[in-house]
Amino acid sequence: MSRASARACANLAFVKYWGKRDAALNLPTNSSISMTLDAAHTTTCVEIDPGLEKDEVWMSGEPAPGAFASRVIAHLERIRSLAGSATPARVHTSNNFPAGTGFASSASGFAALTCAASAALGLRLSRRDLSVLARKGSGSSCRSIHAGFVEWHAGQDDHSSFATQLADARHWNLVDLAVLVTEREKSVRSSDGHRLAANSPFWPSRTRSMASRLAEVRQALLKRDFHRFGREVETEALEMHAIMQTSAHEQRGAWQSGIFYMAADTLRLINAVQRWRQAGMEVYFTLDAGPTVHLLCLEDQSGDVLDAVQSLEGSQDWRTIACRPGPGAKLLSEIDAT
Amino acid sequence: MSRASARACANLAFVKYWGKRDAALNLPTNSSISMTLDAAHTTTCVEIDPGLEKDEVWMSGEPAPGAFASRVIAHLERIRSLAGSATPARVHTSNNFPAGTGFASSASGFAALTCAASAALGLRLSRRDLSVLARKGSGSSCRSIHAGFVEWHAGQDDHSSFATQLADARHWNLVDLAVLVTEREKSVRSSDGHRLAANSPFWPSRTRSMASRLAEVRQALLKRDFHRFGREVETEALEMHAIMQTSAHEQRGAWQSGIFYMAADTLRLINAVQRWRQAGMEVYFTLDAGPTVHLLCLEDQSGDVLDAVQSLEGSQDWRTIACRPGPGAKLLSEIDAT
Repeated sequence: MSRASARACANLAFVKYWGKRDAALNLPTNSSISMTLDAAHTTTCVEIDPGLEKDEVWMSGEPAPGAFASRVIAHLERIRSLAGSATPARVHTSNNFPAGTGFASSASGFAALTCAASAALGLRLSRRDLSVLARKGSGSSCRSIHAGFVEWHAGQDDHSSFATQLADARHWNLVDLAVLVTEREKSVRSSDGHRLAANSPFWPSRTRSMASRLAEVRQALLKRDFHRFGREVETEALEMHAIMQTSAHEQRGAWQSGIFYMAADTLRLINAVQRWRQAGMEVYFTLDAGPTVHLLCLEDQSGDVLDAVQSLEGSQDWRTIACRPGPGAKLLSEIDAT
Repeated sequence: MSRASARACANLAFVKYWGKRDAALNLPTNSSISMTLDAAHTTTCVEIDPGLEKDEVWMSGEPAPGAFASRVIAHLERIRSLAGSATPARVHTSNNFPAGTGFASSASGFAALTCAASAALGLRLSRRDLSVLARKGSGSSCRSIHAGFVEWHAGQDDHSSFATQLADARHWNLVDLAVLVTEREKSVRSSDGHRLAANSPFWPSRTRSMASRLAEVRQALLKRDFHRFGREVETEALEMHAIMQTSAHEQRGAWQSGIFYMAADTLRLINAVQRWRQAGMEVYFTLDAGPTVHLLCLEDQSGDVLDAVQSLEGSQDWRTIACRPGPGAKLLSEIDAT
């Protein structure tokens, strides 16, 4: 029996991954840029065990829900076929943050799984190979392989679509105050949302503008120009939500005009950010495919922003997690050694 | 001294007026389609009084706020110049619904003012002339001149931009359940919003699609095809809000990424409509530049939709007004005679 454990962090996209060119390979329509988040991580242990009849997937000590277990097993299968193995495995995984609320649990999860499973199977893969492999499990997980600030190159095919590091975690003292306003499950899964994006009448316009968006965010980030960075990143998030809110589709037999990932409190926080800026605070927001509001500020403003959040009515029902640029995916033996 | 009183209803746009080609003349970027709303109206009395030193504007028995009074006086001036008069006037106006909540109080207000002032000044104007004139006071008021279902033709210049009736009030038993979720004043006035629309990256895409949107809504309305009508109208509202939410601008010295007219409860109602449709209820929504949600259904469903609204948590704080296709602007002497 061989065993390996790994830990990987979630990541927050500044330029979004929304829309796939190839759904089977998770090839994205456009390149994206993210920050790996130190405070939100998944820890995964993979045991290759000839004594098992079939794969087992455990989440936080319980048998994992069927849909999630199937994705994990499909990913194990990819890694086993690379290693020329057919031995069943036991997977234990746990997050230190709630799933399904806009925090990308599949990103940290599949990055940790890719590292742990490839090590347990004796594969020695480069970060680039790990990123390609993780991508096939869950697109955005290819970014969580790296520390700090990361770009996922859309690429042309399986081998050319992977993430690289733009700058390490010490590059910039950016803070993401993630405000989890509700832990309700979302009504349309991201995998469906990706597919529906092209239903928006604004989709062609968005795809045409992504190259300049990417260049703008990359440059502002490398220059640590928070003013320019915050504007471009907030604009990007609202464009993605405009696409979502105009992606007409059928759901459980009913026609729907769009997908609404914002919750009522998401909108209240957006309004508050607009007021805070008028009061002179430099804070911006971004949103993923969920109700969580990610407030972006520099380290020296983070106390003020947190106070402002906590002064809002209803804030006692929210959970706020302060995230800073975090480490890349690592085997626990590597972590223990440092 | 001469005097005339008129009453005009608000109207609800199915194809929206958002973006102006000429701000001074209120020439719109695109044609629009609306329903005149029986339950929400303004009553306006104009007295031409040589004994006055200057114009007086009263609203619900109080001196009208300065900005509103200035718009009314500028409009009086237009009508006086047509009539060759320079005599000051006293204007009394009142709404039977709250202003500033997405109900277009300026539409009913300027339609009633145009009718009353032109009659008091002895002008005998056709509905077309009244519509041209009202438009210059407030764009969408040109639609409130007519009863029932109305199209505002964008036109090329002052004389060619006016509304005509598409179908009278008995054409279709459509109900607008207007749910006023908050009476808070909006943060960005519509007149500013019109100007900012072109800041959205999606604006060119929207303007290109408006001709087919207009034809689709007009045809569904004339055929009383509620299924097709509801889908197209809801899609239209969300496209307008996508434009708003991506209209970056400066406000009171601060950069803002977009305009949010939705309130938290607006979003809760949108989510509820999606659930109701999944439960088999045929109901759609539209939104104007404000938080009010206009639920659209046919008469035989309106009781069920009202019950559904009232079953929502927090609904006791909302005001719901059921509106049906209403009459065009009329002098009160005409109303008294019928």
